[in-house]
Amino acid sequence: MKAAVLNKPLDIEVKEVPIPEIQADQVLIKVHCIGICGSDVHYYEHGKIGRYEVKEPIILGHEMAGDIVAVGDSVRNLTVGERVAVEPGVTCGRCDYCKEGRYNLCPDVVFMATPPVDGAWAEYVAVRSDFVFPLPDGMSYETGALLEPFSVGMHAMNRGKVKPSDRMLITGLGPIGLLTIQAARLYGVKEIYATDVVPFRLELAKKLGVTAVIDPSKESLAERLEQLTAGKGMDVSIETSGNPRAVQDVLTVTRRGGRIVLVGLPAAEEIGIDITHLVDSEYDVHGLFRYVNTYPAAIQGLSDQEMNIEQIVTHQYSLDQIEEAVEKARIEKDTSIKIMIYPDRSLLNS
Amino acid sequence: MKAAVLNKPLDIEVKEVPIPEIQADQVLIKVHCIGICGSDVHYYEHGKIGRYEVKEPIILGHEMAGDIVAVGDSVRNLTVGERVAVEPGVTCGRCDYCKEGRYNLCPDVVFMATPPVDGAWAEYVAVRSDFVFPLPDGMSYETGALLEPFSVGMHAMNRGKVKPSDRMLITGLGPIGLLTIQAARLYGVKEIYATDVVPFRLELAKKLGVTAVIDPSKESLAERLEQLTAGKGMDVSIETSGNPRAVQDVLTVTRRGGRIVLVGLPAAEEIGIDITHLVDSEYDVHGLFRYVNTYPAAIQGLSDQEMNIEQIVTHQYSLDQIEEAVEKARIEKDTSIKIMIYPDRSLLNS
Amino acid sequence: MKAAVLNKPLDIEVKEVPIPEIQADQVLIKVHCIGICGSDVHYYEHGKIGRYEVKEPIILGHEMAGDIVAVGDSVRNLTVGERVAVEPGVTCGRCDYCKEGRYNLCPDVVFMATPPVDGAWAEYVAVRSDFVFPLPDGMSYETGALLEPFSVGMHAMNRGKVKPSDRMLITGLGPIGLLTIQAARLYGVKEIYATDVVPFRLELAKKLGVTAVIDPSKESLAERLEQLTAGKGMDVSIETSGNPRAVQDVLTVTRRGGRIVLVGLPAAEEIGIDITHLVDSEYDVHGLFRYVNTYPAAIQGLSDQEMNIEQIVTHQYSLDQIEEAVEKARIEKDTSIKIMIYPDRSLLNS
Amino acid sequence: MKAAVLNKPLDIEVKEVPIPEIQADQVLIKVHCIGICGSDVHYYEHGKIGRYEVKEPIILGHEMAGDIVAVGDSVRNLTVGERVAVEPGVTCGRCDYCKEGRYNLCPDVVFMATPPVDGAWAEYVAVRSDFVFPLPDGMSYETGALLEPFSVGMHAMNRGKVKPSDRMLITGLGPIGLLTIQAARLYGVKEIYATDVVPFRLELAKKLGVTAVIDPSKESLAERLEQLTAGKGMDVSIETSGNPRAVQDVLTVTRRGGRIVLVGLPAAEEIGIDITHLVDSEYDVHGLFRYVNTYPAAIQGLSDQEMNIEQIVTHQYSLDQIEEAVEKARIEKDTSIKIMIYPDRSLLNS
Repeated sequence: MKAAVLNKPLDIEVKEVPIPEIQADQVLIKVHCIGICGSDVHYYEHGKIGRYEVKEPIILGHEMAGDIVAVGDSVRNLTVGERVAVEPGVTCGRCDYCKEGRYNLCPDVVFMATPPVDGAWAEYVAVRSDFVFPLPDGMSYETGALLEPFSVGMHAMNRGKVKPSDRMLITGLGPIGLLTIQAARLYGVKEIYATDVVPFRLELAKKLGVTAVIDPSKESLAERLEQLTAGKGMDVSIETSGNPRAVQDVLTVTRRGGRIVLVGLPAAEEIGIDITHLVDSEYDVHGLFRYVNTYPAAIQGLSDQEMNIEQIVTHQYSLDQIEEAVEKARIEKDTSIKIMIYPDRSLLNS
Repeated sequence: MKAAVLNKPLDIEVKEVPIPEIQADQVLIKVHCIGICGSDVHYYEHGKIGRYEVKEPIILGHEMAGDIVAVGDSVRNLTVGERVAVEPGVTCGRCDYCKEGRYNLCPDVVFMATPPVDGAWAEYVAVRSDFVFPLPDGMSYETGALLEPFSVGMHAMNRGKVKPSDRMLITGLGPIGLLTIQAARLYGVKEIYATDVVPFRLELAKKLGVTAVIDPSKESLAERLEQLTAGKGMDVSIETSGNPRAVQDVLTVTRRGGRIVLVGLPAAEEIGIDITHLVDSEYDVHGLFRYVNTYPAAIQGLSDQEMNIEQIVTHQYSLDQIEEAVEKARIEKDTSIKIMIYPDRSLLNS
Repeated sequence: MKAAVLNKPLDIEVKEVPIPEIQADQVLIKVHCIGICGSDVHYYEHGKIGRYEVKEPIILGHEMAGDIVAVGDSVRNLTVGERVAVEPGVTCGRCDYCKEGRYNLCPDVVFMATPPVDGAWAEYVAVRSDFVFPLPDGMSYETGALLEPFSVGMHAMNRGKVKPSDRMLITGLGPIGLLTIQAARLYGVKEIYATDVVPFRLELAKKLGVTAVIDPSKESLAERLEQLTAGKGMDVSIETSGNPRAVQDVLTVTRRGGRIVLVGLPAAEEIGIDITHLVDSEYDVHGLFRYVNTYPAAIQGLSDQEMNIEQIVTHQYSLDQIEEAVEKARIEKDTSIKIMIYPDRSLLNS
Repeated sequence: MKAAVLNKPLDIEVKEVPIPEIQADQVLIKVHCIGICGSDVHYYEHGKIGRYEVKEPIILGHEMAGDIVAVGDSVRNLTVGERVAVEPGVTCGRCDYCKEGRYNLCPDVVFMATPPVDGAWAEYVAVRSDFVFPLPDGMSYETGALLEPFSVGMHAMNRGKVKPSDRMLITGLGPIGLLTIQAARLYGVKEIYATDVVPFRLELAKKLGVTAVIDPSKESLAERLEQLTAGKGMDVSIETSGNPRAVQDVLTVTRRGGRIVLVGLPAAEEIGIDITHLVDSEYDVHGLFRYVNTYPAAIQGLSDQEMNIEQIVTHQYSLDQIEEAVEKARIEKDTSIKIMIYPDRSLLNS
């Protein structure tokens, strides 16, 4: 089969590799479409993220949907021909974290496209059957692929104990920020304020129906929110940008007793935080790592198609065009949101 | 009656003031003993804490127990002669915070010894009856007075969702840290590590039965905890010192998925925090402001007298000696923990 | 002013009574519209509900919205002219339940139209200002009045820890059941099954967009749900009818580990429950009493007018027609859902 | 090896069977001691419990501790020679329940001594390594074996969200009731009321330090509790007997807003419950099935040996005496609590 292999930073090539063999508890999936994630771009550009380093050639990509073309002998929950989405981290099921329902913290997780584990910028991929989820009729493959980043938004709702009545701030309007808006709407949230510094992204957020957008480089976020909410402030703030100023902002503008969910990973080693304000305000600050138990919930939540999460897909490429696609993602951050790859070129404009 | 009035920073005098008149829903309490809190010392020394400033002469003191000597006309839950402890913040009962069970965040709270509200370094004090709690037989007035700082420890347990099986770190061993140890023991916690840099305090923590004490100025806290727990790490960490390094420590040495409760108020405006570690570890970080619904629980919890929280009282003075007492608290931090004041001198050595 | 006074069961008359005088912390409200609740009908018919008995003539009615026409001296949050809804239970703010955020269990609550407390089937009513909530522009008085029964549905969501992905069963489609459907939709729930035996009500539920309606007198509820959900079962079931069979049903058809919220009050003293099934299934069964902290949340949730809760209003009468209105509610249960009363006749068809 | 095989009801024999072969992820344990559980006795007497039926000869027993004598190739967390306790239900780790941290509800669990799965009344048993827990120095094998029923008590604390300040009622003082008392004490609970009708058991509860014991066949439970608590009532009640009257009691005497955990499985198909009281009191009623994530917590909680859970062991037998032991458990319920079996006779009186 064809796969896009990253040999070393900035050196990616599409070449023939063997089709994965499935084990008894796995299914083989023909990839229909697969997104480019910020982490893919980061590995492509820098060759590493934190403690994870690309030492051997690796196939990237972990946001995907496709069709089951083969099932292992012990698989009972899936059959050939089903349209499916894939949760890309396969956990051990036996450690304390797994047993306590926080399998996203499993130290033995095998996560696609995290070195040295291969991902799925390829024609086929083998996945353990309990991490493969059938798509209901009417749900597109693109939505299926986007369940992965959408899951981060869903997990943010759970971490932040979000209720429909919450006034919410979302800082950063990349794919995660935009999908977090939609997760919030799924949770019934009515009053959402969104920030970014890129006009294109602010426009997209408006299109998604947020209450107001704010560019904190152009006006005081605190003052604007004060004004917009008649001083009530934010019940919950979700930071998705990793920008140090945004991290400081959510830890300041949230009302006393409010909740803050931190999703974005700052590049800076340290950020100066007003701890006295955090303590005195009796904040709840929640870090977030990936997601847990979100796929069935996201499929259920999106099943009535009231919400169209696909609209964040701005570009589509075939697998042969992977280099052009990744370069687009790397360089044109202000005009691209989510780029989708189609290993089978004939599906590209379907 | 006699009361200790702070005229301006470092200028405190004991003088005659009128006995407070009680309203229909209040009781008059003859103060048996009342502690000196770090905030009292701070007002004495600096004349302000954050937004609260001593502009008029004020009576300090808010950790007290005593005897009811009069009850208002509408009081039904208390009678003259009862031995009682006082929760020193009287809330409105009508704002959103009050209605949601977080009355500690009530913006209209009237809190003793927080300017311009008088406290109770005095012979008598009037308190609304729903914030006055009878002491069971066998519970000393001193324990009653200490319910106030002990409540902070109890609230830390609640904020941190502490379970008996948690491995716990407590940083800072002033009165709050030491009482947090005892709150943790009340919650069944077996494995407690405690840090400070003052030998006297480390000794006291040992006496309270912690698993191990660590002086982070003398050895690596991370390495020592790693070694002591065979790499398991802290499930929950409670920071009571306000020391910037301690804040950084609890946000680093806690295990993935762990909980951190921040109690101490740093003097520094900002502290550099490794946000990426916080996010990636999926920490829950909880600020804490005073306490809520802790008095009945603390009285119930301490009623069997298995735990002796009085042992943190290191010095006792009469109200006439208030200046000496406050100076002791201010200057001799390494040898004093909790100093107790007795307005009625005859009760001093009872 | 005019008020409808229940002299004794089945004897109601509209007569002149004094306009209530407001205390310093109250506002006077000119009632625009006020619903008839099942409890009003029950007092009208039987003169008592459980321990509450009509011993003196009483004004019923507690689901209302109107205009502020006067404010007490200490009121700061409201002004004359504001359109408002009223939360009809005024709590003490000082008992343990109030302080813990469960003020619905306050033993000292003064609740409208619960003997001997008068309600608001009248031209004017005086209410403590913290239980009066301004209506946003675009929210009708009718919706404002319905916030009271809608609050029960909201509280059911909170008691049942409802998430958007839950499969939900709602038994009983009176006003509470129908408003619970809409509360569930506000919480993002997509898959709702609703039961009743009255065709008119089943039709209304369909109109509200439930996934399927079931008449358990005509087919097996368990089998039908099994079939409709491919065996997945209900994550959460909410019983609003008080019907013994429905109570048994929700305690049987819910999936293992599921949640059940019991809202309806059965007339029967005892209902035979399969406790072994409840234990073995590790159910969470939650009773529900009125509601707590729902008004601001409901107003926020309904503010975008996506949901039209007014559509459950089937009949409208002036206060002069109160007897006809109550008789309609009493006798024609199969064709009436919510009946709304207008003290000012000129507002009736506005 | 020797094992006690139940051929059919009331027909048990000790005979030679093959030592189990371990798989790569299992360890082989030489059983030191193993308790007799009520379910073992029930299978012995009736041949079935609910849907589980003894159709083939089966080895019973599932409360055990012992020594590791062999480890599978992939086992990393355990070594030969370690003293260990065994959690007897091995779960799939892949279903929704497992992934959500409620593995006790896993439909694919393989649970010892639940037909057709063999238990461990035998010299050796093979167990998957993630369900095997090393015992700390100083913790006896007997305590290790009792971690299984003690886990039920721990899970009851978690299900009931128990806090140290709770007033608690425990109905039924068999092994589970008595161990629940001790779990409550581990959670810091000070005020515990315990009921049974057997004097021997009431005496044992007294010995464990409960606040008061009550025989509901001799006095009114409601009145006695009212009197003992000055009307405050029970915050949380835990029913362990399965007795219909006790189930009704806990659903009546608990205070408004209180929590009830139902552990005992009634023989009766239905019990008449006052649903109106449950709803009006806004109770939380929690079923309980086995336990989840309790072993590490229980070991941690009992590690300081302040609590001696072994004192409920009233009789000890060798495996050869199994029939006598089971008959004792079956017939002498009033004088026996927990009976412990020692496959290696030489360990019996060690």
